[in-house]
Amino acid sequence: MPRTRYAVGVDFGGTTIKTGVVSSEGKIVAQSKVPTLGEQGPAAVVRQMQQSIAEVLEQAKKMKINGIGIGSPGIIDQKAGVVYDPPNISGWRRVDLRKEIGKRFRLHVEVENDANVAAIAEAKFGAGKRFPDFLFVIWGTGVGGGIILDGQIYRGPHGGAGEIGHVSIDYQGPLCNCGAKGCVEAYIGQRRLSQRAVERLRDHPGSRILSLVGGDTSKVEPVYISQAALEGDGLARELFTEAGTLLGVALGSVLNTLDLRVVIIGGGISAAGDFVYDAIKSSTQEHVMKPMRKDLKIIPAKLGNAAGILGAAGLVL
Amino acid sequence: MPRTRYAVGVDFGGTTIKTGVVSSEGKIVAQSKVPTLGEQGPAAVVRQMQQSIAEVLEQAKKMKINGIGIGSPGIIDQKAGVVYDPPNISGWRRVDLRKEIGKRFRLHVEVENDANVAAIAEAKFGAGKRFPDFLFVIWGTGVGGGIILDGQIYRGPHGGAGEIGHVSIDYQGPLCNCGAKGCVEAYIGQRRLSQRAVERLRDHPGSRILSLVGGDTSKVEPVYISQAALEGDGLARELFTEAGTLLGVALGSVLNTLDLRVVIIGGGISAAGDFVYDAIKSSTQEHVMKPMRKDLKIIPAKLGNAAGILGAAGLVL
Repeated sequence: MPRTRYAVGVDFGGTTIKTGVVSSEGKIVAQSKVPTLGEQGPAAVVRQMQQSIAEVLEQAKKMKINGIGIGSPGIIDQKAGVVYDPPNISGWRRVDLRKEIGKRFRLHVEVENDANVAAIAEAKFGAGKRFPDFLFVIWGTGVGGGIILDGQIYRGPHGGAGEIGHVSIDYQGPLCNCGAKGCVEAYIGQRRLSQRAVERLRDHPGSRILSLVGGDTSKVEPVYISQAALEGDGLARELFTEAGTLLGVALGSVLNTLDLRVVIIGGGISAAGDFVYDAIKSSTQEHVMKPMRKDLKIIPAKLGNAAGILGAAGLVL
Repeated sequence: MPRTRYAVGVDFGGTTIKTGVVSSEGKIVAQSKVPTLGEQGPAAVVRQMQQSIAEVLEQAKKMKINGIGIGSPGIIDQKAGVVYDPPNISGWRRVDLRKEIGKRFRLHVEVENDANVAAIAEAKFGAGKRFPDFLFVIWGTGVGGGIILDGQIYRGPHGGAGEIGHVSIDYQGPLCNCGAKGCVEAYIGQRRLSQRAVERLRDHPGSRILSLVGGDTSKVEPVYISQAALEGDGLARELFTEAGTLLGVALGSVLNTLDLRVVIIGGGISAAGDFVYDAIKSSTQEHVMKPMRKDLKIIPAKLGNAAGILGAAGLVL
């Protein structure tokens, strides 16, 4: 058996920084979690990362460490190890994270965007272990993705691959933040899903969604719709079923392009229940080429919140 | 300089079989063309291919030949060299072309689907020579595609990648032959484009399209619409501009997924004029993520009818 190796994984988010030491078998053997001091700017945030890494290295000081992997929001130059414009960190235009983190620890540093990191986590340690090729989808605030081909992340020639939230499902559809029309994210991202719930609540005054937000529709969010769906609320299930059906249209387009038959879906919204996966699956099935229908698999991600640390460590394991 | 190599390329189509000997520089040094005897069944057609190959080998008998590449319609098992169900050949269920052709010539045989072959031709010898990564689109009877990543064709885990005609542009759109709704092919393939022309001719009795078909709308086909467009006919240009705009929506989805910025477009319909490329480009630009817009290139294929022979030979060069 090959010797167990270890690496540091940093899940750098706008609200928390989660750091861990991860074994090559996918076990987190040390960890730390701090709220991101986004308003204090990049230097403070980089210091927080350094301190967190020092802390987990101290906890795991008996282990030999392969390197440090960092999953980050924003636009990532993966080759250079540089992060541009992550949301919620004031004044962060461009930070060379590889340099800033590397100079303190003298370890190899890799930086990758958070959707790709989650895809890598599922490929190495989660629901994708059995599948050399799959599409990973993260469905939460927005809709993101990562493409695993032959066990490796496909980044594309400029590092931007996997933007499946911006697959259009209607050329006459609503305008998306990105400037295009009909992107699936503009239909099923957190904001639009909440809006649609509020609109439909007018005709469903008895919905459990309404009682969960104490009657205040300004508080409607997917987490409450999800809770209501779990409790069997009709409107909540309808909303997720519709959204899952729309997601399936975009998935069909992507699978036809890439000849993939496995989709692993994570993120907050996907957690509403098995019926969401059923809706996604039957819609995707209707949109893929015939030879692909039989083998199609739409399965939930396995790693939940740990995916960020695990996948980041996976970058250097 | 490396020595020039040679290979046989067979462009096996439902109406003609074109065969050539091609140099590693992309020169066709010998060729043959025969009408496909589709109604006589697979054995006769395989014999035609064998005779055509023997003929071009005889013409080029001074050259050392690397192998034989075959581009074919139907469903291709590229690894096995087997072709299933090509249209217009009666009784062809499954033919092991690698075996049938290989046993006669004792040369290495590769078989690939015709869209991928055309993509390979453009990558090796045509408009794609300068671009390691691009999407190739063939827009004619239907809409097909091939994906070139890092200079190589991307086939996908099951050999079916590049079905970009079946990217949906409207989840409530018309039913496609494939069973899904809103596939771009169902909007801009030859049949639908002709139908739309006929519908619109009612309000455009003076259109040049109508005089080109001698007033008989049952004869309307893209080749006449294209001719009318070249002569400046307003309706014809409108039809292609609309179709190009719809193609751009699908291209945007594919480019966002794969992070590609170059699209090479061939096939009969794309030949209608530069204005079609302009329409495709401005629509694609509206549908790709911001960082991709500046560098976006939508360019015509270069090789025309020779792409089949060139790309087939390219399989073994």
